Amino acid sequence: MHVSARGPSWVADGVREHLRRMPVENIAELARDTTRAADFIPLWFGEGDLPTPQFAADAVAQALAAGQVFYTQQNGVMELRTAIGEYLTGLGSRTIPPERVTVTAGGMGAILLAVSLVLDHGDNVVIVDPVWPNIAGAVRLVGGMPRSVPMDLGLAGWQLDLAKLEACLDRRTKAVFFASPGNPTGAMIPVETQRAILELCRQRGIWVIADEVYNRMVFGQRAAASMADLADPEDRVLIVNSFSKSWAMTGWRLGWLVHPPALESLLANMTQFSNSGLPTFLQHAAATVLRDGEPFVAHMNRYCEHGVRLVCNALERMGRVRLAARPPAAMYVFFGVDGMTDSRAACREIATRAQVGLAPGALFGPGSDGFLRMCCARAPAQLELAMERLRALLS
Amino acid sequence: MHVSARGPSWVADGVREHLRRMPVENIAELARDTTRAADFIPLWFGEGDLPTPQFAADAVAQALAAGQVFYTQQNGVMELRTAIGEYLTGLGSRTIPPERVTVTAGGMGAILLAVSLVLDHGDNVVIVDPVWPNIAGAVRLVGGMPRSVPMDLGLAGWQLDLAKLEACLDRRTKAVFFASPGNPTGAMIPVETQRAILELCRQRGIWVIADEVYNRMVFGQRAAASMADLADPEDRVLIVNSFSKSWAMTGWRLGWLVHPPALESLLANMTQFSNSGLPTFLQHAAATVLRDGEPFVAHMNRYCEHGVRLVCNALERMGRVRLAARPPAAMYVFFGVDGMTDSRAACREIATRAQVGLAPGALFGPGSDGFLRMCCARAPAQLELAMERLRALLS
Repeated sequence: MHVSARGPSWVADGVREHLRRMPVENIAELARDTTRAADFIPLWFGEGDLPTPQFAADAVAQALAAGQVFYTQQNGVMELRTAIGEYLTGLGSRTIPPERVTVTAGGMGAILLAVSLVLDHGDNVVIVDPVWPNIAGAVRLVGGMPRSVPMDLGLAGWQLDLAKLEACLDRRTKAVFFASPGNPTGAMIPVETQRAILELCRQRGIWVIADEVYNRMVFGQRAAASMADLADPEDRVLIVNSFSKSWAMTGWRLGWLVHPPALESLLANMTQFSNSGLPTFLQHAAATVLRDGEPFVAHMNRYCEHGVRLVCNALERMGRVRLAARPPAAMYVFFGVDGMTDSRAACREIATRAQVGLAPGALFGPGSDGFLRMCCARAPAQLELAMERLRALLS
Repeated sequence: MHVSARGPSWVADGVREHLRRMPVENIAELARDTTRAADFIPLWFGEGDLPTPQFAADAVAQALAAGQVFYTQQNGVMELRTAIGEYLTGLGSRTIPPERVTVTAGGMGAILLAVSLVLDHGDNVVIVDPVWPNIAGAVRLVGGMPRSVPMDLGLAGWQLDLAKLEACLDRRTKAVFFASPGNPTGAMIPVETQRAILELCRQRGIWVIADEVYNRMVFGQRAAASMADLADPEDRVLIVNSFSKSWAMTGWRLGWLVHPPALESLLANMTQFSNSGLPTFLQHAAATVLRDGEPFVAHMNRYCEHGVRLVCNALERMGRVRLAARPPAAMYVFFGVDGMTDSRAACREIATRAQVGLAPGALFGPGSDGFLRMCCARAPAQLELAMERLRALLS
C-alpha cells in the first residue's frame, strides 16, 4: 500500500523546510488546551467584548441589497480607498490620495503584504519589541528572519534606544518594524525617535513598516502621531492599519496599507494572485463605517481607557505585580510578576486556578518572559471580577 | 531634497526583484483601457450576471445579528468545515472529515496556499493549459516558475497527452496543476488520466494540485469526478474549490482547500500569519449556503449550459470561428478565429467596434493566441445581442 510504504511523515516531508520549522505556539493554542468553566474570563486575545456597532451591520445589508456581490478591484473599491484617504487626511497633516491606499485582509494582511514586498529568503526584519508575535510569524512565513530590538522599561515606561536598533541593522536588513502605540505595551514611540528611525532607514535604503493599528486609542487624545506625516510619499515607508480595534471589527478581516503611489499596480498584482481582493460588500460597508464611526471610535477609546485604569488600580495593589508606568494607549496592561520565570506556565496556572485567561509575555519578545498581557477592552464588572480572582495568586 | 536625490525608481528598486519582473497584464487591465458605451456587453470576466441568491444575504444578516463578528478559527469555523466535509462526502465516494478542510480566500487563496506550501524559490509547477492565468501568477508571486503543458485540440475536444506532461517533470518540479473541468476550455480530464497523473506524481514525490472550482457545472450531470475519490488522504494532493461560480459568490472571496489531515495545523499557522482567517459571519453564512443551495446550484448549471449552447449555436454559423467540440462543462466558450494572430489586438478591436468584452486567448497559455474566451453565464437576451454584434466581425 502506498501510505505505509511512504511512512508517516510523507506529507510533511513534502512541505517547504522553513515552514516545517515555524513555531506553531500561539495564544489560540493555549486557549484550546485549557479547561474552562462557564464563568471563565478570557482576557488573552487582542479583542474586546463590544460587538461591531449596528450601523455597520446595516451597511452590510444595504451593500448586499445593492448587489455588491461581484468581483472587486484589486487595491480595493474606490469608494473605500477614497474614504480611507479622506479619513487619514482628516487625522494628520498630509493629504493621502486613494492611490496610496490598498485595502487588506486586516492589519495582518497588510503586514504580510509589506514583508512579502521586501524580503527575500534569508533577509531580516529588525522588530522593536515587546511586540505582537504575528510580526515575526509573517517574517518567518516568507522565509525571512525576525531580529529583536527590545525596548527598555524604566520609570517613564517603555523606551527605545536608537543605538541598539542601529547596532542590529546589517546588509540583509530589509525593514525596521515598530508599532506605536504598541501591543502589548501601549507605549508610543516619540515623534523625534520615529523621525530618527526614518532618517536612519533612508540612509541605508531600509524600509520602515509602521504599525498604527492602535492610533485611535491614545487616552485623552484624538490620534497618535503618524509616520504618514513624517515621511514623503516616495519614502520606503509602509503603514499598517485595521478596522479591527477601534471599530470592533476583528472578525471582518479588513485593514489597509498606506504605501508609495509607485507601488499601486504591483500591490494590485500581488492582491490579484493572493486573495483577489476583499469581499466587495464588506468594503462598501467599511466606507460607511469610516464616515459614520467617529462617535463609536471615541466611545471605544474611553472604554479602553476606563478598563486600563481599572486594571492598573487593582494590579498596583497586588504585591507581586510590577507596573512601572501606566500605558498611555491601546487596550492592554503588560505587567511584570515578581518571582515568575516561566510566563507560559504561569498563564496555564492562572487559567486553571483563577479561570482568567492571560497571554504569556514570552510570546511578545525574547526578554518578556517575566510579563503577562491582559486585554482590558471588556465590561468593567468582568474586569473587576478578574482582578478579584487574580488577587489571591498575585499578592 | 530626499526624493529627487533618490531618483524616480527609488521605491520600486526596494522591492524584491522577482516581483518587479512579474507581468502585470490581465483582463481587468484590458477592461480599464477600453472605452465602453452604456450598452457594452462584458463577457471577459469569469463571472456571471446572477447575483448571489437572497437566502445567502439573509444568512449574513442572521450571523451578524447573532454577534459572529469576533476572531475566527484559523482553518475556518467548525460549522463551515463540517458543512464542506459533509457536502463533499455527499458528492463523492469518500468521507471528507473537517480536519481535511481549510477555508480560504476564494479559489485563489486556496491556490496561493498550495503553491506557498510546496514551492521554494526557483522550483517549478507543471501546469496543464489552456488555463486561468492566475495559476502562473500565484507561482510567480512565491518565486516559482510556471511550466506549460498544452493540451491538444482535436475533434473530440481538448485532450492531455500524458507523455508530454511526464517530459516536463524534472528535479525541481514540486507540483502538477490541472483544472477539471477547465477554465477556459470547459474540458474534463478523464478519471483514468487523473489516476495516471496521481501515480506519476506518487512515484516522484510530486504534489498534485487539482482545481475543481467548476465541478458542479458539468452539463446534464450532478458533479465532475473528484481527485478526492482517487487519492488517499495521505497522498500529496491538494484540491481547490470555491463558492464563487456555482453559488454566484465571486465577490464574497470564499473557497476551500482539501488537504491531507497532517497539514491541518501548518495551514492554520500559515493562515494565522497571512489573513488570520476569513470573515466570521461570512463563514457561518456560507455553511447555510452549502446546506440550502442545491436548487440554486442546479439552476446555475442549467443557466450556464443554456448560455454555452446558445453561443455555440451562433458561433458555429460564423465563417471565421473554429469550434472543434462543444464544451461539456463550466461557463465559457473558448474558440479559435481564422486569420487571427494577435488575440489581444483582436479583443481590443472587438471591444471597440462591437462593444463586446472578450478575453484574449494569449493569457491562457503560450499556444492559445489564436483563441478567444467568452463567458456565457449571462442572460440569453444579452448573449444573443452579443452574437449579433460579433457576426459582422467573425463571419
